[in-house]
Amino acid sequence: MKIAINTGGGDAPGLNAVIRAATKAALNRGWEVLGLRNGYASLYTDKPATRLTPDSVRGITMQGGTILGAANRGNPFEFPVLQADGSYTYEDRSDVVVSKLAELGVEAVVAIGGDGSMHLAHRLSEKGLKIVGVPKTIDNDLVGCDTTLGFDTACTIATEAIDRITTTAESHQRAMIVEVMGRYAGWIALHAGLASSADVILIPEIPFTLESVFKKLEQLKKQGKEHAVIVVAEGAQLKEGGHFIKGKQVGQAELLGGAAAFLEKEIMSQTGQETRSVILGHQQRGGRPSTYDRLISLRFGAEAIRAIEEGDFNKLVVMKENQLRRIPIADVAGKFKTVPTDSDTIMTARDLGICLGD
Amino acid sequence: MKIAINTGGGDAPGLNAVIRAATKAALNRGWEVLGLRNGYASLYTDKPATRLTPDSVRGITMQGGTILGAANRGNPFEFPVLQADGSYTYEDRSDVVVSKLAELGVEAVVAIGGDGSMHLAHRLSEKGLKIVGVPKTIDNDLVGCDTTLGFDTACTIATEAIDRITTTAESHQRAMIVEVMGRYAGWIALHAGLASSADVILIPEIPFTLESVFKKLEQLKKQGKEHAVIVVAEGAQLKEGGHFIKGKQVGQAELLGGAAAFLEKEIMSQTGQETRSVILGHQQRGGRPSTYDRLISLRFGAEAIRAIEEGDFNKLVVMKENQLRRIPIADVAGKFKTVPTDSDTIMTARDLGICLGD
Amino acid sequence: MKIAINTGGGDAPGLNAVIRAATKAALNRGWEVLGLRNGYASLYTDKPATRLTPDSVRGITMQGGTILGAANRGNPFEFPVLQADGSYTYEDRSDVVVSKLAELGVEAVVAIGGDGSMHLAHRLSEKGLKIVGVPKTIDNDLVGCDTTLGFDTACTIATEAIDRITTTAESHQRAMIVEVMGRYAGWIALHAGLASSADVILIPEIPFTLESVFKKLEQLKKQGKEHAVIVVAEGAQLKEGGHFIKGKQVGQAELLGGAAAFLEKEIMSQTGQETRSVILGHQQRGGRPSTYDRLISLRFGAEAIRAIEEGDFNKLVVMKENQLRRIPIADVAGKFKTVPTDSDTIMTARDLGICLGD
Amino acid sequence: MKIAINTGGGDAPGLNAVIRAATKAALNRGWEVLGLRNGYASLYTDKPATRLTPDSVRGITMQGGTILGAANRGNPFEFPVLQADGSYTYEDRSDVVVSKLAELGVEAVVAIGGDGSMHLAHRLSEKGLKIVGVPKTIDNDLVGCDTTLGFDTACTIATEAIDRITTTAESHQRAMIVEVMGRYAGWIALHAGLASSADVILIPEIPFTLESVFKKLEQLKKQGKEHAVIVVAEGAQLKEGGHFIKGKQVGQAELLGGAAAFLEKEIMSQTGQETRSVILGHQQRGGRPSTYDRLISLRFGAEAIRAIEEGDFNKLVVMKENQLRRIPIADVAGKFKTVPTDSDTIMTARDLGICLGD
Repeated sequence: MKIAINTGGGDAPGLNAVIRAATKAALNRGWEVLGLRNGYASLYTDKPATRLTPDSVRGITMQGGTILGAANRGNPFEFPVLQADGSYTYEDRSDVVVSKLAELGVEAVVAIGGDGSMHLAHRLSEKGLKIVGVPKTIDNDLVGCDTTLGFDTACTIATEAIDRITTTAESHQRAMIVEVMGRYAGWIALHAGLASSADVILIPEIPFTLESVFKKLEQLKKQGKEHAVIVVAEGAQLKEGGHFIKGKQVGQAELLGGAAAFLEKEIMSQTGQETRSVILGHQQRGGRPSTYDRLISLRFGAEAIRAIEEGDFNKLVVMKENQLRRIPIADVAGKFKTVPTDSDTIMTARDLGICLGD
Repeated sequence: MKIAINTGGGDAPGLNAVIRAATKAALNRGWEVLGLRNGYASLYTDKPATRLTPDSVRGITMQGGTILGAANRGNPFEFPVLQADGSYTYEDRSDVVVSKLAELGVEAVVAIGGDGSMHLAHRLSEKGLKIVGVPKTIDNDLVGCDTTLGFDTACTIATEAIDRITTTAESHQRAMIVEVMGRYAGWIALHAGLASSADVILIPEIPFTLESVFKKLEQLKKQGKEHAVIVVAEGAQLKEGGHFIKGKQVGQAELLGGAAAFLEKEIMSQTGQETRSVILGHQQRGGRPSTYDRLISLRFGAEAIRAIEEGDFNKLVVMKENQLRRIPIADVAGKFKTVPTDSDTIMTARDLGICLGD
Repeated sequence: MKIAINTGGGDAPGLNAVIRAATKAALNRGWEVLGLRNGYASLYTDKPATRLTPDSVRGITMQGGTILGAANRGNPFEFPVLQADGSYTYEDRSDVVVSKLAELGVEAVVAIGGDGSMHLAHRLSEKGLKIVGVPKTIDNDLVGCDTTLGFDTACTIATEAIDRITTTAESHQRAMIVEVMGRYAGWIALHAGLASSADVILIPEIPFTLESVFKKLEQLKKQGKEHAVIVVAEGAQLKEGGHFIKGKQVGQAELLGGAAAFLEKEIMSQTGQETRSVILGHQQRGGRPSTYDRLISLRFGAEAIRAIEEGDFNKLVVMKENQLRRIPIADVAGKFKTVPTDSDTIMTARDLGICLGD
Repeated sequence: MKIAINTGGGDAPGLNAVIRAATKAALNRGWEVLGLRNGYASLYTDKPATRLTPDSVRGITMQGGTILGAANRGNPFEFPVLQADGSYTYEDRSDVVVSKLAELGVEAVVAIGGDGSMHLAHRLSEKGLKIVGVPKTIDNDLVGCDTTLGFDTACTIATEAIDRITTTAESHQRAMIVEVMGRYAGWIALHAGLASSADVILIPEIPFTLESVFKKLEQLKKQGKEHAVIVVAEGAQLKEGGHFIKGKQVGQAELLGGAAAFLEKEIMSQTGQETRSVILGHQQRGGRPSTYDRLISLRFGAEAIRAIEEGDFNKLVVMKENQLRRIPIADVAGKFKTVPTDSDTIMTARDLGICLGD
């Protein structure tokens, strides 16, 4: 058996642990393993893949990033080709991917990636490629599963940052706003906000009003608390306004700086409270995976090989109800798992007196 | 409604988060909350309990230990009474506990503790006390649930320590042995050992032979790896010998220093390999809880109050299949959840080529 | 003897350790200790100060922030008074500070703060107040000393963040820009940039050209390195342009987002390299102090008491040539210690091939 | 110019940063760099050295250990040769080292190591080898300098561990003993003990009596503090007894388990206080260097190359009075820098009311 491993999409801590486990599990079965460099792109070049050995994957469980590299422009169905005038045209190179892998003798692919990569995997599987997917997203917004690799690390990093910022809020009587990742789902904001004892948590699933935030600040002052910590998902949604996405509010004028900057300006101008904001950004995506993420990544990688061994293709390996499961790739494409607004975690936030903006 | 909160048993990161969530959730319902100092022992004194307020629980989510204190000798059914000659006799003071709480107007108790505390809770409930339990154990060996509070932090601390020790093993061509907690169950050893890329993991569930360990060291040398990292649970079991418990092997002569010291001596003398060992001990029990442990602890604390509100007594709040559940206290007493030797995590360890000692 | 402790200026990890050491050292001499709440401002109220006891300072060495609070508007020489129309007028309340402290029986003040606070201390000392200063600044830009409290923690936090971001840069072939604190001095950028193996470090002391940065990126590509990590001080200086300060370049049009955003835009547009930026901001100022900062803070606090005991007033306690020293407050006011461009640390950066922008 | 780099002695975080800086600084001067594998031992084999390139040292600043490996039996003056009967005889192979390096064209050696390695370096320099030494010891006991590489990391790890253990001590009313490294000097115990707010710190420089420790515990109880944290250097010295070294007290019967076990037993039996102990051991030696250690290691490595460039041989590169300095190797051999018992740090410990055992 010869397999290939591919990593795609944004960074997430744990990718290397998946690569290591899949490689070791395959080699221990006597298989050969190829790694695709920077996504499928290496297949269009004369160095189509690297052979993975025990040495290639030694010590990488604890490393962030992916030793294979991830494509910045990785869609083989719309591959960008630079034109003489500096513009790009887009070609469908998916047949090249399939034929080149066949030529290399690759019988199955472990595709590690996010929503986009899983969509690609699905389309490639329709062209005959045998694929087992390992979904990753620090945003935890994949349907059909409890948690995704990278999410625990992202929450950990965000919590540590909010912990730090809280001491300054407290001693300097400030409102401190921390913007975390989460365009469509508020998992990181909710989990890190709870874990760090935030006073206000704003997530896309619960549209917020400025009034509710101001009211909370007022109430804290009455309790003798001159400071506040506000955790906001980048995709938080203003009740009368719309989502903040990439520094814009959809359907409104551009809001430079996004959710955090908007809140900082409004709180300062409307309440007079000293306010500062921090955007955590890419800090949440890289670096050493947490112990939990290392473990599930290793389990995902090994399970992918078991799936291939059993001929169970076009499946994703996920953690569901605290068990490893395999679900059809087709079941998850284009769907998002948002925070259920009646979950016990939301109830816990309300029980703790946290303002959720509604 | 007036409730009391009690913490018992060994330390586990997350206790304070449970206390905070339960207190806030109760106060927000207009209830009164008492905290029992150092277990039930305060009930025999003239300062039977402290009133918990928002100020008492401010900022404690991230703190290790318990602000209430935990009894070192806390069993009210066998309370130790110091005699004139320095010895102890044991009295049953359980009726004092029940009557004193009644006298204080306490209608229900949130009991946070380990196996021993849950057993006590069960016996007290048989005497009429209304109890909701929140089980904690860093060992993760509670039946009926996925994970317990403190376990993720313990795995994280152990993994970081093994990471550190691994670099020395590598550069100094040594076998390094790390002994982690786990008297009856190997959860910490297995998870931290996998996450830190250990070469050998020895857990109580899989009795080991020295021969299998020596063979693994031999095999690593053949692959050009002159070092090895061995993670051993304190309760590891020698196939022909028995468990190591508290520095002894049951059924054998006393082994000073326990599993790690035994392995160090045997490897040094029988293979000549430079070997060092470290026992992590109480480092795994204290300090800041991980983000995950903070979150589940808050959820457990708030859920305990919901259970009381609904009159759902003599239950434990647990995480099962990634959902908050309530199970009868009677269901868990005296049972241990050990690592299933056919679990996918064990399979992953084998897929990675890790020696499990068998 | 009765003394008062005051904390002023921006947050810096270690303030609480100074407070603890000064309080304990004073109490152990049989003195009384008052803590001024939120700077000198408490002296204008009817609760002019809090008495500090062993209990008030228990466990605070490891906590960020200051338990005393720091004034947001703390200058007693220009105290802001809110007018009916919402505007402020400024009063000189310095005499109130001096007379109120005398009234309270305070014989000496330990003033912990930054450049602004030391300037105030100097002016108050000219009015007869007996002061010993403990300077703090995470920026390390105080003349007359090796290092200031908070600096080691700030470098540690920045290094960890850059470490994380580097793995993403590498696996996703990006230029990643990290903006750290340092308006007039590049200490954090230089130390954290070196420690995290940055490719480019831009500090205010060495004006940079975009060309030198582009050239470095080019050179890295030739060496097969498709990514780059650029660490930039917020006050970095464009050779033909001026300093970036608070999101502006002095002498130029406003540059929204400051140094990082400017670089991101220029690199993207002029080289086509995928680029992302992160501004660490207030993460560098708060939270647990590093071991080093805890230790020097404790030493500073205890030394301040020894200075008072010896009647050695109007001095700052500093670390100079690795020894505790006391220097006249007047010697440091209004001066900045910038990075010497011929220091061995700068030479080390050049030896490592790091681009410094010149 | 062709140089060689050697690492010797026990592990210390920062070795790889020295290797990287020295290698890059040398390559940037157009020199060649060889790395000796596992100390001088590679010189007796047919693979005498590895050529170091920019790729060999990429990304290693943050890694613990040494990529070159360190000899377990590395003294070329007394090289152990295994005999047929399993015993060893010792040969002087120092001439082989000198001649083999000459044969390889090596003109100078950067020797990174501890006291033993520096002694070797001195003896080899007497045989004509041109050496620049970079001293490392986590114990900080090298004369003629402020601090050594690895020491800040060791203090940081110890402080974090003591922080964790303190929360358990507090909530469970225990005396917790933490044994840290330091056979002849108490630097780690003193710095980490202060930074973590220990109640008792026992260092080799100040012989202790059990009575002083018991008295402190008594006094804490009177203040309502039922717990205590005791930090003890492995080489602590009992006033009437002698040093604890490697689990023995010199001049006394063997004390299994060393200083911590001795204290645990004595406190338990003589005061009845619940007591637990932890020995940090090799955790203090390995893993990621702190930001401070990374920086000084890089500076040391680059400075070593500058010394070679200037022909300034048989010197050690050290940090003295916060400046890089070069001192003759001969000046430091066989001497230890112990904690001055009248230093301000010791005074600070006394000012804080910490028991130092005397």
